[in-house]
Amino acid sequence: MNALRWLSAHGSMKAERIPLDELTGWRRDPGTGNLVHASGKFFSVEGVDVRYPDGPVSRWAQPIINQPEVGVLGILMRRLDGVPQLLLQAKHEPGNVNGAQLSPTVQATRSNYTRVHGGRPVPYLDRFRSPDGRVLSDVRQSEQGSWFYRKRNRNMVVEITDDLAPSAGFRWLALDDVLDLLSVPDVVNMDTRTVLSCLPPSVWGDEYAMSGRSRHDMGEILSWITQRRSTVEIHVERIPLDRVGGWRRERGAIAHETGRYFTVMGVSVTASDREVGAWTQPMIEPTATGVVAFLLNRFDGVPHVLVRARVEPGYADVAELGPTVQCAPANHDTPPPYLEEVLGTPPGRVLFDTMLSEEGGRFHHARNRYLIVETDADHAHPDFRWVSLPQLTELLRHSHYLNVQARTLIACLYSVVREMVAAR
Amino acid sequence: MNALRWLSAHGSMKAERIPLDELTGWRRDPGTGNLVHASGKFFSVEGVDVRYPDGPVSRWAQPIINQPEVGVLGILMRRLDGVPQLLLQAKHEPGNVNGAQLSPTVQATRSNYTRVHGGRPVPYLDRFRSPDGRVLSDVRQSEQGSWFYRKRNRNMVVEITDDLAPSAGFRWLALDDVLDLLSVPDVVNMDTRTVLSCLPPSVWGDEYAMSGRSRHDMGEILSWITQRRSTVEIHVERIPLDRVGGWRRERGAIAHETGRYFTVMGVSVTASDREVGAWTQPMIEPTATGVVAFLLNRFDGVPHVLVRARVEPGYADVAELGPTVQCAPANHDTPPPYLEEVLGTPPGRVLFDTMLSEEGGRFHHARNRYLIVETDADHAHPDFRWVSLPQLTELLRHSHYLNVQARTLIACLYSVVREMVAAR
Repeated sequence: MNALRWLSAHGSMKAERIPLDELTGWRRDPGTGNLVHASGKFFSVEGVDVRYPDGPVSRWAQPIINQPEVGVLGILMRRLDGVPQLLLQAKHEPGNVNGAQLSPTVQATRSNYTRVHGGRPVPYLDRFRSPDGRVLSDVRQSEQGSWFYRKRNRNMVVEITDDLAPSAGFRWLALDDVLDLLSVPDVVNMDTRTVLSCLPPSVWGDEYAMSGRSRHDMGEILSWITQRRSTVEIHVERIPLDRVGGWRRERGAIAHETGRYFTVMGVSVTASDREVGAWTQPMIEPTATGVVAFLLNRFDGVPHVLVRARVEPGYADVAELGPTVQCAPANHDTPPPYLEEVLGTPPGRVLFDTMLSEEGGRFHHARNRYLIVETDADHAHPDFRWVSLPQLTELLRHSHYLNVQARTLIACLYSVVREMVAAR
Repeated sequence: MNALRWLSAHGSMKAERIPLDELTGWRRDPGTGNLVHASGKFFSVEGVDVRYPDGPVSRWAQPIINQPEVGVLGILMRRLDGVPQLLLQAKHEPGNVNGAQLSPTVQATRSNYTRVHGGRPVPYLDRFRSPDGRVLSDVRQSEQGSWFYRKRNRNMVVEITDDLAPSAGFRWLALDDVLDLLSVPDVVNMDTRTVLSCLPPSVWGDEYAMSGRSRHDMGEILSWITQRRSTVEIHVERIPLDRVGGWRRERGAIAHETGRYFTVMGVSVTASDREVGAWTQPMIEPTATGVVAFLLNRFDGVPHVLVRARVEPGYADVAELGPTVQCAPANHDTPPPYLEEVLGTPPGRVLFDTMLSEEGGRFHHARNRYLIVETDADHAHPDFRWVSLPQLTELLRHSHYLNVQARTLIACLYSVVREMVAAR
C-alpha cells in the first residue's frame, strides 16, 4: 500500500537498551530514588502504594510514570469532495517495534511545545493552540492507568478549509484508508487511535449510528458509573521509588521479583527526524503481550459491546470503562472473565484481530492483540454493561469515561461497523 | 404557608460558639496542628498552599476542610395525578441561622451511613443504596471549592410508585411548591437545591426547554472548558494547618490576619431530632455575606445565563463553571466583573433575589444573596460564556461541570423560567 511504503521510507531512529545508571540528563533523586530529568520537566518514574480492599489483589506497590502536564494530541481534518481526510505524520518512537508509525498531526507534551529541551518548534501546533478552523473534538482523556499516574492528554480534531500542503513527514490520508490501516499490525499509533475514537458522529455519518434502541438508557449507564465511582474503595499513595516493595534493581533495570508485569529500563536514542537528535530516557517495558477485546452482540440488530468498569491506580477518578478483556494472560494464574470465550471464538465470528503498539515514547515494545469478537451470549455481570456505539460516542465527548484501550477498540469498531453498514 | 408552619414546628437544635480548644472528640494533631476527629472519620481541618501564577492572587495559604468520603444526597420523587412530588425532611443543622430547613430525603455522609458514631440508622437510605424505583438522576458533584478540598456528593433522585407514608419529620411537597419556597429566605437548604438542579428534563416537561438555538453549540462549550482545564496552571499542595501563613489563632478560632474571608470556629450542639443528641465540631464561618448572581439575556427569545470558568483550590479538576458573579464584596478592593451591573439592575429586571444558606453542617451562618437579573448587554469575555437551560441540563448529567453556587442558581432559574412559560 502506498501509505505503508511512504511510512517505511520516512526517517530513521535507533534505540539501544542501556542500564538505568547510564542515562544522561536524568538522575536518581538521592532522597527518594525517583528517576527525574535534570530540568525537572518531562516526566519522572516514581512509586505508588495501592490499597484496594475488594480488588483481586488487596494491596501492592509498583513503579509508575508521573507526567502531570496535559499534552496535545491533535489531528487536522479537511474534506476533499466531502470525503474526510486526516493530516498524519510518519513518526518514529524509541519504543516502536518496527520504525515509524502513523501519528497525529501534533503529538506534543507541554515540555515539547514550551521547548524546554530547546528543540525545533512543533509543526502545526498553532492550529490547535489558537484554532481558526472548526473544533470538532476537544476532550482530555486518560492513558494507561497501570503505568501512568493520572496522565491525560487533550484529544483534538480541527477541521480546516484552507489549502494546506503537508510538510515533509506529513501526509493527508482519507479516513477510510486510516480505518483500513488499523488492520495492519503496528501501523496506526496509539495517539492516532485515541483521537480517532473521539471523532464526532457528524464525521462518521448517520449510517454508523445503526439507529435503534440501546440495551440500557444513558441514565442507567451513567448511574452505574456513578455507583462504581462512589462505592469502590481504592487508596493510592505516591511513595519514593526506593520504597516500592517487591521490585528490585537488577541488570540495570527495575523488575518485579516474580518476573511479571513490566520492567523500568533505559534506552539511548538517535533520531533523524526529531526536534532533538539524540537522547536517553527511562521507559516501561511490559514482560508479556496483552489481549484487549470487546465481545460484541446485536440486540434488536443494534451492535453493542460489553464494557467493564475498571479500577486502575493511575486513574484520576477511581474507575473508567474498559474493554471486556484487558490483560496480559501470562500475568494471571486464573484467567479473567471472558478471556477464554474471546480466545475460543471461531474465526468466522472474529470481526477484528490485529496486533497494535502502545505509545512508543514511554513504552518499549508494548504490544497488545486487539480483538472484536461476536457472541450470542447475553452476559449479565455487575462489573459489565452492554453499550451501543452512539452511547460510546456520547460518552467520548466527556473526559475520563473510556480508558485508552477501550478507545483503541472503538476506533477499530468503526472499521467493523463500516463493514456491517456496507453488508446491509 | 402550610409547609413553613410545619418546618418551624419541627424539632429543635441549639448551637453555641465554643473555643476550638474545648472541642470534645476532636483533637489537634501534635505533628500538624490539623483538627481531626478521634475516630479518624468525618472530616478534618487542614491547610493548603496554593500557587496560581495567572490568578488575581498568585499565591496564598488557607485552612480547608478535607472530607474525602462521597456522601449521598437523595430525594425520593413520586407522581400524584402526574404531578411530581418530593419527599423532603425538616432538618436542623448547627450552622443554620433560623432552625430547620427543607433537606433532601437522605443527606448522609459515608460515616453517617456506616454508623461510625453509633447513631440511629438513616431513614430511607436503602432506597438509594439499592434503588427499586427508577433512578432519574445519579451524579457526583463538587461543593464549595474555597472551603472544601475535593469534596463531592452523590446527587440522586429516585422515582417510586409505591405508597409511602412519610415518617415523622418528612413530608411530600409538590415540586412547584418547592420552587415557590426557593424565594423564601433560608428555607430550601443547599443540598436540596443541588439535587433539584440535577433533575432531568423529563421531570420539568418540554416547555422548560424554551426550545430554540443556543448561542454556542455544545461542542464549543465543551472545547472552552477543555481549553481552560488544560492550560490554567494551578498547584494546590496540602500542608499542615500549623503552617498556613497569614492565619492566626485568636479567641479560640483561626482567622486571617486581615479579618477577611472566614474563620475556623467551634460549636457545641444539642439536638432533639438527630441520630446523636449532642456533639461538638469545628465549622467554617465566613466573615461577610456573599453575592451570587446570573446575568440572563434572551437570544432569539431563548434565555441564556452567563457562566464563568472558575478556578478554586478545592476542585478536583482545575476549573468548573460558576455564576456570573460569586464573591463576598467585602473581601475585594476592586469589584469583580459584572458585580456592579448586577447590583445596579433596576427592580423591574430582577427576576430572582433571595438570601439562601449554604450547608449548615459545615458552615456557620454562611449566607449568600442569590440573584438572577436580566440584561440586554451581550458581554464577550474569555472567562465567560452564554449557555442555555437545555445545555445546563445536559452538563448536569455529568460530574464537576457546574459548581455548587451555579447549581443553586439553576434551581432558582427553573422557578424563573416557569414564570416565563406561564407568561407566554
